[in-house]
Parts: sequence; structure tokens; C-alpha cells
Amino acid sequence: MRVTVKQIAELLGGQVIGDETTAITGVSSLTEASPGDISFLANPKYAPYLAETKASAVLVAAAQPGGQLVQVVVANPDQAFARLVDTYGPQVAKMPPGVHPTAVIGENVRLGRDVTIAPYVVLADGAVVGDRSVIYPHVYLGADSRVGNDCVIYPHVSIRERCTLGDRVIIHSGTVIGSDGFGYATVEGIHHKIQQVGQVVIEDDVEIGACTTIDRARFDKTRIGKGTKIDNLVQIAHNVQTGSHCLIVAQVGIAGSTKLGNHVTLGGQAAINGHIVIGDQAIVTAMAGVSKSVPPKTVVRGYPAQEIKVAQAQEVAVRRLPKTQQTVRQLEARIADLEARITELAKAKP
Amino acid sequence: MRVTVKQIAELLGGQVIGDETTAITGVSSLTEASPGDISFLANPKYAPYLAETKASAVLVAAAQPGGQLVQVVVANPDQAFARLVDTYGPQVAKMPPGVHPTAVIGENVRLGRDVTIAPYVVLADGAVVGDRSVIYPHVYLGADSRVGNDCVIYPHVSIRERCTLGDRVIIHSGTVIGSDGFGYATVEGIHHKIQQVGQVVIEDDVEIGACTTIDRARFDKTRIGKGTKIDNLVQIAHNVQTGSHCLIVAQVGIAGSTKLGNHVTLGGQAAINGHIVIGDQAIVTAMAGVSKSVPPKTVVRGYPAQEIKVAQAQEVAVRRLPKTQQTVRQLEARIADLEARITELAKAKP
Amino acid sequence: MRVTVKQIAELLGGQVIGDETTAITGVSSLTEASPGDISFLANPKYAPYLAETKASAVLVAAAQPGGQLVQVVVANPDQAFARLVDTYGPQVAKMPPGVHPTAVIGENVRLGRDVTIAPYVVLADGAVVGDRSVIYPHVYLGADSRVGNDCVIYPHVSIRERCTLGDRVIIHSGTVIGSDGFGYATVEGIHHKIQQVGQVVIEDDVEIGACTTIDRARFDKTRIGKGTKIDNLVQIAHNVQTGSHCLIVAQVGIAGSTKLGNHVTLGGQAAINGHIVIGDQAIVTAMAGVSKSVPPKTVVRGYPAQEIKVAQAQEVAVRRLPKTQQTVRQLEARIADLEARITELAKAKP
Repeated sequence: MRVTVKQIAELLGGQVIGDETTAITGVSSLTEASPGDISFLANPKYAPYLAETKASAVLVAAAQPGGQLVQVVVANPDQAFARLVDTYGPQVAKMPPGVHPTAVIGENVRLGRDVTIAPYVVLADGAVVGDRSVIYPHVYLGADSRVGNDCVIYPHVSIRERCTLGDRVIIHSGTVIGSDGFGYATVEGIHHKIQQVGQVVIEDDVEIGACTTIDRARFDKTRIGKGTKIDNLVQIAHNVQTGSHCLIVAQVGIAGSTKLGNHVTLGGQAAINGHIVIGDQAIVTAMAGVSKSVPPKTVVRGYPAQEIKVAQAQEVAVRRLPKTQQTVRQLEARIADLEARITELAKAKP
Repeated sequence: MRVTVKQIAELLGGQVIGDETTAITGVSSLTEASPGDISFLANPKYAPYLAETKASAVLVAAAQPGGQLVQVVVANPDQAFARLVDTYGPQVAKMPPGVHPTAVIGENVRLGRDVTIAPYVVLADGAVVGDRSVIYPHVYLGADSRVGNDCVIYPHVSIRERCTLGDRVIIHSGTVIGSDGFGYATVEGIHHKIQQVGQVVIEDDVEIGACTTIDRARFDKTRIGKGTKIDNLVQIAHNVQTGSHCLIVAQVGIAGSTKLGNHVTLGGQAAINGHIVIGDQAIVTAMAGVSKSVPPKTVVRGYPAQEIKVAQAQEVAVRRLPKTQQTVRQLEARIADLEARITELAKAKP
Repeated sequence: MRVTVKQIAELLGGQVIGDETTAITGVSSLTEASPGDISFLANPKYAPYLAETKASAVLVAAAQPGGQLVQVVVANPDQAFARLVDTYGPQVAKMPPGVHPTAVIGENVRLGRDVTIAPYVVLADGAVVGDRSVIYPHVYLGADSRVGNDCVIYPHVSIRERCTLGDRVIIHSGTVIGSDGFGYATVEGIHHKIQQVGQVVIEDDVEIGACTTIDRARFDKTRIGKGTKIDNLVQIAHNVQTGSHCLIVAQVGIAGSTKLGNHVTLGGQAAINGHIVIGDQAIVTAMAGVSKSVPPKTVVRGYPAQEIKVAQAQEVAVRRLPKTQQTVRQLEARIADLEARITELAKAKP
């Protein structure tokens, strides 16, 4: 990027304090900025960084004292900065469009309009890629799998046979959709594989992070609901169903056949037992271990997870516990003393 | 699939209630079924779903009241359904056999009979693939690595140099076998790499999930015992040895040089310390953190893990703790009161 | 390898007890050794294995009684063995140098001297690979990404656009550098993607394990400091900054914008909250959940993490808790008894 502070102020409808001809060549936070960068101050607790920043200009909600930093006063510096980044900042990289000659394309594959099929992509027989979708290098789409319109599939993603993605789905590198569920029939200590012949269905507007694994159902569908966002290194077992617009943070594990409602949030590293239901708008805090179903709109925490107020009261109680145990020892001594005294008194009774 | 209920009843030795000419085109659970599907009722708690299911037919253990659903009465609906799925359901996808012309095959590579080597597979010098094994696209087999007979290696698996797999091993997408162990000699705060020149040995009939990592030994062998099944996103550090027929659920981590006996079960997200021994048939519950060796046939739970009854008694005790602390405060007051009264009484003593 | 015990003793400056012409063909631990192997005894607790080992020779710090095992007495068997392995043991596999004809190389890619670009590598436009760096098969380097000198990038690594690696960086298979951070603006329950247009900067001498994910910053830089070593399956969120020479063990998760000082150690499966600071030389023990900033040189443990002595005192207290609650019940009975007796006495008072 190469723009002037004036151009930025015009874009954002802001007032410039200082030299509006200052050239801006990058965007950054206050602490990471280099000369030529523009930054922003949204949270007043970062105001001290204004004196030290190497940025050339800063978006602020109100004029800040001192300094030679050029200021642009805007109503909401955080939102204004996001708009600035969208307009002038580094753009999301685009693969060149078209089908690369090295792509291996099976029989009966259907490609939509304006697709990008990058080098070394393998599309097995019957795979479908919708209009304008971008398939990065080394992606594998299994037989009869289907990617909708306007999807982005990053390098090294495996989408196994018969799994389907809706429109505007984004899947980051290394993620695996449709690996076999972990199912065995154990007879006399030997684990015999139960074939996993179901599918995974990813609905519209889902985004899935890197190195996440979503297993295919035993014979039905593992389903990720519309608009749900899943972070990196998440494990979703066979036959799990998530509702719409859930947030599943990194390293969460969800065991088989569990069902999430809509707008559920699972914090990082939380583990959810199999065959339970997490109600609409429930929140599971980071690292919680949920063994039983959770009612809607409930926040749970800890292991085994309990309603958050109950869990926190127990955490406070445990922190006090060494002191409590000391008190109990003192009470024992005081009671022993009382017992001795009362026995003495009783003897002395006329 | 396209069969009649009559054909299904004949396959399973069942009795049809309703129209045996009904056409069946798919298999599904009661709740996920579409018209044309056959489903099953194994657990009586799901009987209410019979009224709502869109399935066209259902396997049952005994005739169910009402409804126009075609029923097939069989001895064991769960097992019968599995057999039906195996016979008529979607089949596990097969790669077309043969060596794809894009496969890069190093010097002294040996390929068994009837192997499948898919597009863009790279077999480094000296790699061996046994009879009938299937190597999916983009797999990398390092120098002198060896895959046995009847194995299936899914896309994007890396098997590093000199690692070996037995027969009938299945490895799911994105898994890494033989990455370097995490070993450093730290001198004055600087971590110097200790070369990891050992191997990984995977014995017969092992299945390993997606995005799991198994590090090579420092100079010996990391070993996964015969028939052991490992889920997704599991970390197995250098020099770990598992026994035969273990079950290791998703997101477990096992630190270096730890040894599992035979038939050990590790629940999801459990973490096992390094240099310890988990005895035969021991069970570590989900999310447990095991710091010390576990005797055979023992179930452990919690962090730090303890024998399950002990751990559960402490969990119950913690849930009661806020109440206990309230009781202790009341006891303090009652004792103070007793102390005052007894002092009063003693004074009053003639 | 094929050397005599005599040659080994000369290399290590050791004294041979037994037949110095014994041929040695491999290196191994005492318990895993086969005939022809040399092993070592560093920790006296393993001395009993000397009687059972199948090794042909062993490095020892002092002559051991009995047995026909050839012994080589050296000052420090552990270090001597490491030197022996480096000299005669299996060597780290090397890819043949040069640029493989199947590599897809974009416009304006710059390759240093003596690079290895393996089959099916994809280097997007503007990517840079420094001198002597080795890029294994199926690696993807995004547009304008940069790999320094003497790096090793193992198979199936994705390095997304504009991310940069210093010199002597090692990245193991399946790892993803520069996937999008997990950032959404939620409006009326719908999660709108916030574009992640920043970078990841990996400094010199960093090693990163397999299937680890490091997200690009929102618009700045996610940074991994010089000499830091990261294990497998670790999640590092957007805008995280680590200092120099940190150790981050497998399956750790670090939430967004958190900052680690220098020489920080994070134990396996630990989870670190976002927007906090972990001070220089602090240690977070395995499985700890850190919600608040940690001062330098502090060891924390548990969930929520506390200073280790405090955490351990609470763990001890919880283990005693069932007994404490029993004591409290007994005290209640004794107090009730005292209250009755004192009331009795008071009534009896003349």
C-alpha cells in the first residue's frame, strides 16, 4: 500500500491532526509498527504506547496530547482500522484461476464456472467443485465428494469419498474430512473394525481451521451446521451433529453421536462426552470436561463440568481448603479441651 | 443399493410385517432416515422415534404396534443391521489398482503384487510396499521404509525413513510416522538438538487415525503393538512402546519412553507422563493426567490420576466442600459459645 | 555401521574389558538390543539389565561384575554413546540435492545455492528458499513466503503467503504456518469473518514438530523467537509472540495475542489464555490451565494455574478431604453432646 494520511481520513471520514501529506505504507499495532505504518488506539489502556510507537500515524477516538505522531480522529478507531485494512492493507492471497495441467481429474468429475484447481490436486471419480471455488495445491477430493460454490480449500486437505460441503465453506490446511470413525467390536480382547460407511455433511458458511479432523458417520451423517466456525486441531467424532452458528475453539474434542444445539460455544481444549446434548446457546469454558447433557443457555466449567457458579464456588473453597483443615485441627483441640473441662466441672458438681 | 424388503428378510432370516415388495435404497438411523431407507430399533428407548421416522422399513426384535412402517423381525436388530450394511450399504471406496504414472519411485523400491500406488505418491529409495496394499494420493514413504501386505495408507500420510509397518495396517490422512523426537541438550539456556536416528515399528493389524503423530526413537524403536487402535490427533513421543490390542482415544498424549502393557485403554485427551509403565488391561479415563506408573487392571481418573474410587470420592467431597466450610464456621461459633458458657459455669462453681 | 569394539574405544578414549575385536553393527538401549549392538549404562538403576541384554558390548563408567558382555569404560557413558551414535550410527536421511523436474515454481521465485526441491513441491510466486535448504516432497510455500538458509522442511508442510522463516529452521511433516487466525465479529448470533492479513515470523534456529498449527496475525506478526523448540500438535493462535529459547511441549494451546518471555517452558497439553504475559524463565507444568499472567521465574500448575507450592498444597488437602469431612461430622456430634451436657450442668447449677 502507498497512500497519504489525507486519503485515509477521507476514506474513514476522520479529522487529521498533523501533516496530512504523510505517506503510509503499512498497517500495524502500536507495539509492532515500523515507520510508515498507521496504527490505532481503541482501548485507553494502550495510550502509553503512543509515546513509544514507531508508527507514523494513528487512528484515535479523540485528540491525544503531545507527540509528533499524525492523528486521525474517527468515531470508532477499531472498526475504522478494520475498514482501512480491508481497503488498503495486504489482500488475502489469490491463486491464479483455471485448472492446472498437473491436476489429476477422475471420471465424471464436474467443475463449476471460474474454478481454481491448483497444481497436484487430485479429484477422484465423481467429485464436484462448484462455481468460483478455489482448490489449493495437493488437495484430495475423494470419489463422489462435493464442494459447493465460492469455497476455499487450502493445501493438503483430504475430503474423503461422498462427503459434501455447502457454499462459502473455508477449510484450512491439513484438515481431514471423512476419516473413519473410531469404532470396533471387541471380542475376547481383540478389536474388530466396524466399517464406517456414512458421510460428513458440512453446511453453508462453515469455516474449519488447520489440522482438524471430522470423522465420517458409521452409516449416517456427521453434520456441521450452517455458519459454525471451528478452530485448529479439533476432533469431531463420528455421528456428531452441530447446530448452526456454533463456535468451537482449538483442540476441542467431541466424542461420538453427541449433538450440539445452535449458537453453542466450546472453549479451547474442552472435551465433550459421547451421546449427550449441549443445548442452544450453552457455553462450555476452556478445558472443561463435559460428561452429561447441558441445558440451553447454561455456562459450564471444570471437570467434571458443572454450572459455572457452582464450579467457581468449589474452586474458591478448594483454595481455602488448607486453611479450613487447619481450622478443623484447632477445633478438635478446643473440643477436647472443652470435654476435659466439662468432665472436670461435672465431677465437681455437688 | 436397490433391494426389496423381501431380499433383506431373506438375507437376515427375518419375518416381514407389511409389504415385502417395498423398495429399499439406503440405510440410516431412525432420526436421519429419508423415504426408501431401512433403519433399525435396538434400544427400546428409541421406540418413540418409530412414529416420526421417514424410513420405509425397520429391523425390530419384536413386532411394534401401529404405523405403516414395514417391519422385519430379527433376533438381534443391531447385528442384523451391521450385516445388512456390509452386504447392501455403501461400500468402502476403493482406489483403482495399479501404479499411477505420476508416482515418483526411487531406486531399489520394491512393490508387491496387486498394489495400488495413487497419483503423486513419492516412494523414496529403498521403500517397500507389500502385496495388495493401497497407497492413496500424496503419500510420502521415506528411504528404506516398509509397508506390509494388505495395508491402506490414506492421503497426505508421511512415513519417514526406516519406519516399518506390519500387515493389514490402516493409517488415516495427515498422520505422521517417524518425525523426530523432541530431544534437546540444554546448555546455558540454549537447546541443542539431539539427533533422533531410531525408528518407528508398527505391528500387524494396527489402525491409526487422522493427524496423529508418532515420533521416531532417539536410537531404538518406538513401537505400536499388534492390534492396537489409535484415534485422531494423538501424540506418541519417542521411545514409547505400546503392548498389543490397546485402545488410544483421540487427543491423548504419551510422553517419551513410557510403556503400555497389553489391552490398555486410554480415554480421550488423557496425558501420560514419560518413563512410566501402564500395566496390562489398565484403563485411564478421559482427560486424566497420569504422573506415576499404573498397576495392571487398575482404572485411574483425574489429575493427578488416582484409582477411580479414590478420585471419585474426592470429587464428591469437593462438591460438598462449600457446605463443609459453612459447617466449620458454624462449629467455630458453637465452640466459642460453649467456651464462654463453660467459663461462666466454672466461675459460678461454688 | 560395522566397526570393532577397539575402534569404538579409540574414538571415545575408553578402556576395553573383554574381546576388543568384537564386531559392532548397531546401537541400542540395553532392553531393545540385538546381538551385534553396543549399548550403554548411565543410570545405575538399569544395571540389572546387563545380565539380560542381548547387546554384544556396553559403555560403562566403571567395570561391572560378571557376564561375557564386552565392556568399554568411559568417563561419561551417556555423552560417549551420543558421540558414538553421531559417528557410526544411522545418519539422518538426506534428500538427493537439486530441483526435481516435477516441482512447480511460480514467477519471481528465488532459490539459493545447493537447495533441494523435492518432487511435487509447489513454490508460489515470489517465494524464496535460502542456500542449502531442503524442501521435502509435497511442501507448499505460499506467495512471497521466505525460507532462510540451511532449513529443513519435511513433507506436507504448508507455509502460507508472506510468512518468513529464519536460518536453520526445521519444520516437521504436516505442520501449518500462517493459517487464518480464529477471528469473527458476531452480530446477532452470526459470525462474520475478520480477514487475517498479517504474517508469521519464525526466527533462526527454531524447530517445530509435526501437525502443529501457527496462525497468521490479524494484521501484524505472529512471532516465534530465536531458538524456540515446539513439539507436535501444538496450537499457536494469531498474534502470539514467543521469546527466545522457549520449549513448548506437545499439544499445548496458546490463545491469541499472548506473549511468552525468553526461556519459558510449557508442559504438554497446557493451555494458555489469550492476551496475557508469561514471564522469562517461567515454567507451566503439563496440563495446567493458565488464566492470568505469570511472573518471571515462576512455576505454575493446575487449573486454574497457581504457583506450584500453593497448587500442590491444595492437591494434598483435597486428597485428605474425605477424611476431613468425616472429622467434621464427628466434631458436630461431639459438640452436640457437649451442648447437651453443659445445658444439663447449667440446669443442675444451684
